[in-house]
Amino acid sequence: MSLRADADRIIQEAIKAVLPEEAVRTALDGFEVPEGGQVVLVAIGKAAWRMAHAAWNVLDARIDRGLVVTKHGHSLGPIADFEMVEAGHPVPDQHSYQAADKALALVQGLSERDRVLFLVSGGGSALFEKPLIPAAEMADINAQLLRSGASITQINTIRKRLSGVKGGRFGLACAPARVYSVILSDIIGDPLDMIASGPAAPDSSTCAQAIAIAKQFDLKLSTEAWALLDSETPKDLPHVTSVISGSVRALCKAAEDACRALGYTPMTLGDSVDCQARELGLVLSAIARRHQHSETSVAFLMGGETVVKVIGGGKGGRNQEVALAAARGIAGCVETAVFSFGSDGTDGPTDAAGGYVNGRTLESMASLGINPDDSLARNDAYPALAAVDGLIMTGPTGTNVNDLSVVLIRR
Amino acid sequence: MSLRADADRIIQEAIKAVLPEEAVRTALDGFEVPEGGQVVLVAIGKAAWRMAHAAWNVLDARIDRGLVVTKHGHSLGPIADFEMVEAGHPVPDQHSYQAADKALALVQGLSERDRVLFLVSGGGSALFEKPLIPAAEMADINAQLLRSGASITQINTIRKRLSGVKGGRFGLACAPARVYSVILSDIIGDPLDMIASGPAAPDSSTCAQAIAIAKQFDLKLSTEAWALLDSETPKDLPHVTSVISGSVRALCKAAEDACRALGYTPMTLGDSVDCQARELGLVLSAIARRHQHSETSVAFLMGGETVVKVIGGGKGGRNQEVALAAARGIAGCVETAVFSFGSDGTDGPTDAAGGYVNGRTLESMASLGINPDDSLARNDAYPALAAVDGLIMTGPTGTNVNDLSVVLIRR
Repeated sequence: MSLRADADRIIQEAIKAVLPEEAVRTALDGFEVPEGGQVVLVAIGKAAWRMAHAAWNVLDARIDRGLVVTKHGHSLGPIADFEMVEAGHPVPDQHSYQAADKALALVQGLSERDRVLFLVSGGGSALFEKPLIPAAEMADINAQLLRSGASITQINTIRKRLSGVKGGRFGLACAPARVYSVILSDIIGDPLDMIASGPAAPDSSTCAQAIAIAKQFDLKLSTEAWALLDSETPKDLPHVTSVISGSVRALCKAAEDACRALGYTPMTLGDSVDCQARELGLVLSAIARRHQHSETSVAFLMGGETVVKVIGGGKGGRNQEVALAAARGIAGCVETAVFSFGSDGTDGPTDAAGGYVNGRTLESMASLGINPDDSLARNDAYPALAAVDGLIMTGPTGTNVNDLSVVLIRR
Repeated sequence: MSLRADADRIIQEAIKAVLPEEAVRTALDGFEVPEGGQVVLVAIGKAAWRMAHAAWNVLDARIDRGLVVTKHGHSLGPIADFEMVEAGHPVPDQHSYQAADKALALVQGLSERDRVLFLVSGGGSALFEKPLIPAAEMADINAQLLRSGASITQINTIRKRLSGVKGGRFGLACAPARVYSVILSDIIGDPLDMIASGPAAPDSSTCAQAIAIAKQFDLKLSTEAWALLDSETPKDLPHVTSVISGSVRALCKAAEDACRALGYTPMTLGDSVDCQARELGLVLSAIARRHQHSETSVAFLMGGETVVKVIGGGKGGRNQEVALAAARGIAGCVETAVFSFGSDGTDGPTDAAGGYVNGRTLESMASLGINPDDSLARNDAYPALAAVDGLIMTGPTGTNVNDLSVVLIRR
């Protein structure tokens, strides 16, 4: 096997572990079907259909009723007799509001013997919403917030209080039934109250903060909205169990396992890196240089989601920039590679999942007249990597749990 | 002991190991005083006086003659009867030329039983020079090169051929005497032919490259200079032994030892990192977050020299930016610190060696109205760190072997 084949195996195994189906299967190990109680399934988010389908494969007739809320075009057909709603994303629409009403109706009147199996994935914040003020006013407040320069945490502190399902309120509405929430996390650090705006997660923000933010940014609000800012969100939801199953941590864990199976000693350095893509490439190349004479095969893993400042008009993505930026630093290192990929299989606006470089990539590029520094300056990593077979192509995977970057040294 | 006290101990021990005295003492373990032969000492560079003084402390009367070439104001007094030359830096002057002539005279007529103890530190390229063309023409060519956009490697490829001591030529002039070269490296990766322009190191560049570079950048050269570009530099110097003693690797090694002595399990991730300072801070904070629940005390070390794009008018340095940029990412992590320091003790144009932050730093800064992101945007890390006792103060150390950044997690 070549080093590249090892990389491809690691990528394949890592992604497999965080597909919605696998994430749900793993998480359901901890789900107890109640004696004599009902099971109600509610799935929201871009991966809702696949998560619901996986749950049905495992639990089948034990699920009494189901509602699947996903993005327009993301339903792949009927699942049992579950109700399907396709709704707006990234901007909520009437279907988003109907979805929330249907979900609230579905969990009404349950007893403490019943269970709500709540499957959450990214996009849920827009797809599943119940505004407590008129939709027009909500749109106006959203516009004010986006203009204001408020942080996403500050914006969510306001939004949660204007919603009947965000900030733990959907979880509260399920009581006294117990809620088992399975979460596919697309936000690094897995902040439960941020993923899909945390419909079943205790909210860490307070009314005092919400009012301070509204004053700080001089928001124009109706009396009704002001009153809502002062309505507290749940701080404690003891009947809710949350399991983060698909997440960048699981991606790292599966990649570690794949590395071990291929004879590498793996080490995950981090799982929440958020620096500039090309700078991470430089750091990874420094790690590769230091360990290039390692006596055994080693792998260093870094999960997270880097950022790119787009200044050029080229074609690429953050993972392609991580890899390309490492090419110069590992030039000449024997059996050494740096690669980086997005678990969703689509890095930036391209059909590649990421990029792969090894100790000979710089020379290969030079022989084709390609200078990686120039390519990076134009944000044009894609054609540079394409020219040396350095693109990672997985196709869209249907999951999104951030990215993984790997240094691979084989002995 | 507090975490900060641990950090201070690690900094102290690491710097001690790469002081010129210690670097020379360690390297002289491998130096054989010849039976019946002479020992001639030549020390060049900003640390030349301290290196020569250390060699004299060890070898004393075994050194027959000595020449010390350092920067104006860097001689700390007589050493035995060694000749002292203080010369120009960063621009060479007449003293630089005299120094090279004196050194060449000193090593003339030696036999193969004799030894040249050659002590090299940063700055040697300017302090020690013998131009083979008139000084005015040399200055003109230097100006052309600096305007041209040529890389430092390309510039050195030209310069070595116009010099009687660079690119291994001083080493060649010492033959048949054997040369023992002790090198305090200020360039990451320790490229022997780059440190002080490699007076005793085999040169990896070629005449063909030099001529191609001159043509590429359309240099205006005299016939004499063109001829010199075609005069090859030594490619093999079997009578020269080079020992890199003080270097960022030694800095990392000593820090590892200090970590172990304090109960931490250390791991050096890299020793040649060259990314943007604040981005390294983000990467280190991601590593700290991942390992904050480690069951044992751990330390992650990263050596190298980061860069800062100065856009604001504030006060700070690259190590201070590394540390400050990590403050937000490690906020709330228990007994966790990130610190970074320059081995020369002067980080940027400040009197601090670097910066230190821990899991409570962000909160402390917030209570004082300091936002680290704003401080970084102004390149103003110094006052932000100063306000929370986050500056590392060592004073100038007299050595320069790059920087060290550390993640420290104590259990």
